[in-house]
Amino acid sequence: MRSYKSIAVLTSGGDSPGMNPAIRGVVRTALHHGIKVYGVQRGYSGLINGDIHLLSSKGVSNIVQKGGTFLKSARCSEFHQANIRAIAANHLRKLGIEALIVIGGDGSLTGAHLFEEETGLPVIGIPGTIDNDIFGTDDTIGFDTAVNTALGAIDKIRDTADSHERYFLVEVMGRSSGFLAIHVGIAAGAEMIVVPEFAVDIEAISLQLATSKRKGLGSSGIIVVAEGNSPGLTNRLAEQLTHHGHTPYVSILGHIQRGGHPSGHDRVLASCLGAKALEYLLAGYSDMMVGINQGQVVNVPLDNLTRYRKGLDPELLKIALQLHK
Amino acid sequence: MRSYKSIAVLTSGGDSPGMNPAIRGVVRTALHHGIKVYGVQRGYSGLINGDIHLLSSKGVSNIVQKGGTFLKSARCSEFHQANIRAIAANHLRKLGIEALIVIGGDGSLTGAHLFEEETGLPVIGIPGTIDNDIFGTDDTIGFDTAVNTALGAIDKIRDTADSHERYFLVEVMGRSSGFLAIHVGIAAGAEMIVVPEFAVDIEAISLQLATSKRKGLGSSGIIVVAEGNSPGLTNRLAEQLTHHGHTPYVSILGHIQRGGHPSGHDRVLASCLGAKALEYLLAGYSDMMVGINQGQVVNVPLDNLTRYRKGLDPELLKIALQLHK
Amino acid sequence: MRSYKSIAVLTSGGDSPGMNPAIRGVVRTALHHGIKVYGVQRGYSGLINGDIHLLSSKGVSNIVQKGGTFLKSARCSEFHQANIRAIAANHLRKLGIEALIVIGGDGSLTGAHLFEEETGLPVIGIPGTIDNDIFGTDDTIGFDTAVNTALGAIDKIRDTADSHERYFLVEVMGRSSGFLAIHVGIAAGAEMIVVPEFAVDIEAISLQLATSKRKGLGSSGIIVVAEGNSPGLTNRLAEQLTHHGHTPYVSILGHIQRGGHPSGHDRVLASCLGAKALEYLLAGYSDMMVGINQGQVVNVPLDNLTRYRKGLDPELLKIALQLHK
Amino acid sequence: MRSYKSIAVLTSGGDSPGMNPAIRGVVRTALHHGIKVYGVQRGYSGLINGDIHLLSSKGVSNIVQKGGTFLKSARCSEFHQANIRAIAANHLRKLGIEALIVIGGDGSLTGAHLFEEETGLPVIGIPGTIDNDIFGTDDTIGFDTAVNTALGAIDKIRDTADSHERYFLVEVMGRSSGFLAIHVGIAAGAEMIVVPEFAVDIEAISLQLATSKRKGLGSSGIIVVAEGNSPGLTNRLAEQLTHHGHTPYVSILGHIQRGGHPSGHDRVLASCLGAKALEYLLAGYSDMMVGINQGQVVNVPLDNLTRYRKGLDPELLKIALQLHK
Repeated sequence: MRSYKSIAVLTSGGDSPGMNPAIRGVVRTALHHGIKVYGVQRGYSGLINGDIHLLSSKGVSNIVQKGGTFLKSARCSEFHQANIRAIAANHLRKLGIEALIVIGGDGSLTGAHLFEEETGLPVIGIPGTIDNDIFGTDDTIGFDTAVNTALGAIDKIRDTADSHERYFLVEVMGRSSGFLAIHVGIAAGAEMIVVPEFAVDIEAISLQLATSKRKGLGSSGIIVVAEGNSPGLTNRLAEQLTHHGHTPYVSILGHIQRGGHPSGHDRVLASCLGAKALEYLLAGYSDMMVGINQGQVVNVPLDNLTRYRKGLDPELLKIALQLHK
Repeated sequence: MRSYKSIAVLTSGGDSPGMNPAIRGVVRTALHHGIKVYGVQRGYSGLINGDIHLLSSKGVSNIVQKGGTFLKSARCSEFHQANIRAIAANHLRKLGIEALIVIGGDGSLTGAHLFEEETGLPVIGIPGTIDNDIFGTDDTIGFDTAVNTALGAIDKIRDTADSHERYFLVEVMGRSSGFLAIHVGIAAGAEMIVVPEFAVDIEAISLQLATSKRKGLGSSGIIVVAEGNSPGLTNRLAEQLTHHGHTPYVSILGHIQRGGHPSGHDRVLASCLGAKALEYLLAGYSDMMVGINQGQVVNVPLDNLTRYRKGLDPELLKIALQLHK
Repeated sequence: MRSYKSIAVLTSGGDSPGMNPAIRGVVRTALHHGIKVYGVQRGYSGLINGDIHLLSSKGVSNIVQKGGTFLKSARCSEFHQANIRAIAANHLRKLGIEALIVIGGDGSLTGAHLFEEETGLPVIGIPGTIDNDIFGTDDTIGFDTAVNTALGAIDKIRDTADSHERYFLVEVMGRSSGFLAIHVGIAAGAEMIVVPEFAVDIEAISLQLATSKRKGLGSSGIIVVAEGNSPGLTNRLAEQLTHHGHTPYVSILGHIQRGGHPSGHDRVLASCLGAKALEYLLAGYSDMMVGINQGQVVNVPLDNLTRYRKGLDPELLKIALQLHK
Repeated sequence: MRSYKSIAVLTSGGDSPGMNPAIRGVVRTALHHGIKVYGVQRGYSGLINGDIHLLSSKGVSNIVQKGGTFLKSARCSEFHQANIRAIAANHLRKLGIEALIVIGGDGSLTGAHLFEEETGLPVIGIPGTIDNDIFGTDDTIGFDTAVNTALGAIDKIRDTADSHERYFLVEVMGRSSGFLAIHVGIAAGAEMIVVPEFAVDIEAISLQLATSKRKGLGSSGIIVVAEGNSPGLTNRLAEQLTHHGHTPYVSILGHIQRGGHPSGHDRVLASCLGAKALEYLLAGYSDMMVGINQGQVVNVPLDNLTRYRKGLDPELLKIALQLHK
């Protein structure tokens, strides 16, 4: 057990829906334990500039349903430098702040680990990213909402696909991982799912489309494509398929996937992880992230995040392959 | 391992969003294994009347996103009689059907258990209900969608609550259990949550509203109420609070909670449970339900459903209490 | 032409989606013309209590998409007294406010007329109500959003209606007028529409349901019912239909119809009416409401509102009758 | 007055939400008058291939809420040839079909005009396009839904814009006209709106962004851009603004704008236009389109569509300019 008088919370990196209820979970749980909570504006930028303000219970009222983050967020390359991190720690110390809660993705949480390692200020991470690509946790805040947003878009696209009897290549986010693509693909009843973890085989895709048509299984459908690392992948796939005699349409979902009211699942997840982050802190833990493993909240050492890489669930892959027509 | 040539699938009881992708999961996985699948219309009614038709892969195309159940559903009191269940079994045998998949809630799955016990026809259950009140599984198909539907309604109601500075009592489904109310309440940032598992204390609610107002924490908000067993609970609560000097508005969400496009979570859950039901059947299991425990698909003996009662998660209760203002 | 230095704006009565963009339209247009704008809190209550604050351009940023009204609203029975209205006028005069824009429904705009008549302070009304029951204008702010909200609910209810092969009586708002019911009914493809303008004929409804079933046109569907003046109408209808051998379900949509993000149509309408209210004021008009007639913004003398009653469009009634199956 | 025994209906060109209720309006009104209705599959392609089937009242049940068109649609370049149009007319005559209702955009209705001119078969057009760019009508089926869909996306994008304090360039459809962009821009509270009708002035946009920032009016917001005639416009604008020291994000909404459940407005509009098309036909009219002018249904000679070009509403342009901060 450890006692704290003042802590701070920030959101960092790409915003994800549910960051607001996570902040609220941290603030209200801390106040419940008699701890003051400061909010840092604009992620690590605000930490460096000392843009740090006291938060109240009422101040986090009526935010649970809002997308984005009311503390603002930013990507901050300066924070990659150790001397800058030292300046940031001083801002916190001057205000009597004894610990920091960081809500963000892989990169932000790695920064948090270095920050504690160098400055000794206890840090707890909360996984907030629509990509769900953080090692050690089955779920991240914003992932469920992003799946639903992508599905809402695909449900609209399907109207045109059916009316015009065309295939659509729908690009979802996911530079190095296909978590979003797999979930969206299964939930959308997609004919195919292209993920960065596997090489794309245009011949195989083309053959499957042709077979589907020949069998009378229809000539319209959805192919979900994770954006991958090289921009323009989906448009290139469309061109290649056109060379093979198909004429798919393309839809790039883009930034709408980051926003919107958080889903019920993400609001409950964020509330729980926010509350649990505080409990771990009070129990004496730090340099860790709260995560979900086998349906339970667990603690994940922050340095695991850089050491290991999360893989796709082979069970889901199998189901995705079995369920298309 | 066991081999099957023909099986049947039905949906029974109150419909829930995700029943369609569950049917699709069963049908496509069965066809993948070379097994014929029949669809029974209107739950056990169709079983009794022999309203049973062969399903194809294409026949379950483009249903993954649709609410309700394309096989129709019904509550069927006749099926409570053993002699009627024997007639139903004969209809299946005449068509060469060797096993039955039942998608539904508590009552429907209990009927499924009796059906196998008496007739020897293997049965696998899939939990489909928005109430999430089935013992042995942490999740049921339709629950996540219902949470999101209720939240969508509350997000609208909050506009009026804020504009008129009033409290709203919002009634969600849940006759004997508060699972939906707890999740909706946490996700909505509700000031209070009333569930059937605990006695309602009007004095305490009234005191809390008064304290909130006195502290300047605002005089508007949401109180989520599970409908409970005696109709009219929420209106009675409103009257009592009015006697205590508050003047809350009331909104009964009602049937909209059962319908709508299934959420991404429910579509993936339904697809997985549909596929897994088949795998368990082929592995030689029966008289069981596929469920979710600690994030994994598990098998739950059907007779457990009547023997045990699922309780609210104490961790969620604690978080709900800590997070209101 | 007349020149003004300071004006005020308020929202009164039941809130409706689009009141926020209407306020924004008033404020930004006034500032564009170099006029200061004050916001009155809680409708006429704030006018009586002097709860009046200066608004800025930035202060109305980012509200265009929000339901409800950020100025708050209230029903205010005190304002029915002439001496109270005189007090309210003094509050405005003390602040140098020379005119008042009132956004609200029938009752609120009638109060506005009396206010100008007695105090000489110029008033312009903007019709804001989900009921669309204001004489002199074909459209009111919030009506289109309410139609869409009701349809969203009915689209969910239809899943259960179809799955269980039942009729649903769906109650929408409308105490004395059936505008919302007619639009929702046509748009929902309802089998029947019950409005306060016509007596309910249970025999006729029952006969039509029976005929529909006999002809094989299905035994499920939606009947839209305007709530009417005597509470409980829809439940009574359901009981009567049950006596006639039908067993419809009931869904009362209630308060969700008032809230939610305003639709595109309502945001554009509100922006235009807000801007036009200012232009009429500057052109020397007052004691009038801006309204929509034949697709154009028109001015409607406020005392017409009490003198005449708006009727249902006979053309829409005819179409509603022809289009059901 | 003229009497018909059999007519046909088709949907052509890009699909738009509300085509289904328009078909339903045509079919049910025709049946009400004792006229048989045939549905032509895939627009003019189905007319050429004789893919024409009888429709029933029940066959158009439960489609009012569905996006796309259940008759399918297609762009058909063959129909530009007069000899092909003659073949199409013969298919209709062989089935005893005496008139044709065409639901579609500018190009499709121009084809309809030629078809009647050459073959003598009476044709009535119904304007169905999300672009609202058809001369002679203030409104087209699908426009209102597309506005709402774009707004739904922008409401999500705004979460990220606010959280990251960035401007977003949001591209909406509109190759040669800015109707969608203007409506979406006003309704979204956009800072700027770029339309094909006016040259883009990057210097002016850049200056306005800088001024806004300098005045403390915020450094985030939405700029709505109509796609225009040369692909890649929005990305080029983003590059140019980046050269001027701004770093906007880009979101291309794309195909989601064509799909989705039609809005209430579009369902009522489609139902009315479908019904009115029949009434005009029975009143002896043809070679015309039913349109909306000053809030009324009017008839527009089809050859006007090619002769005149619809312009942006100057009143809306003025309001758009006045209302940004």
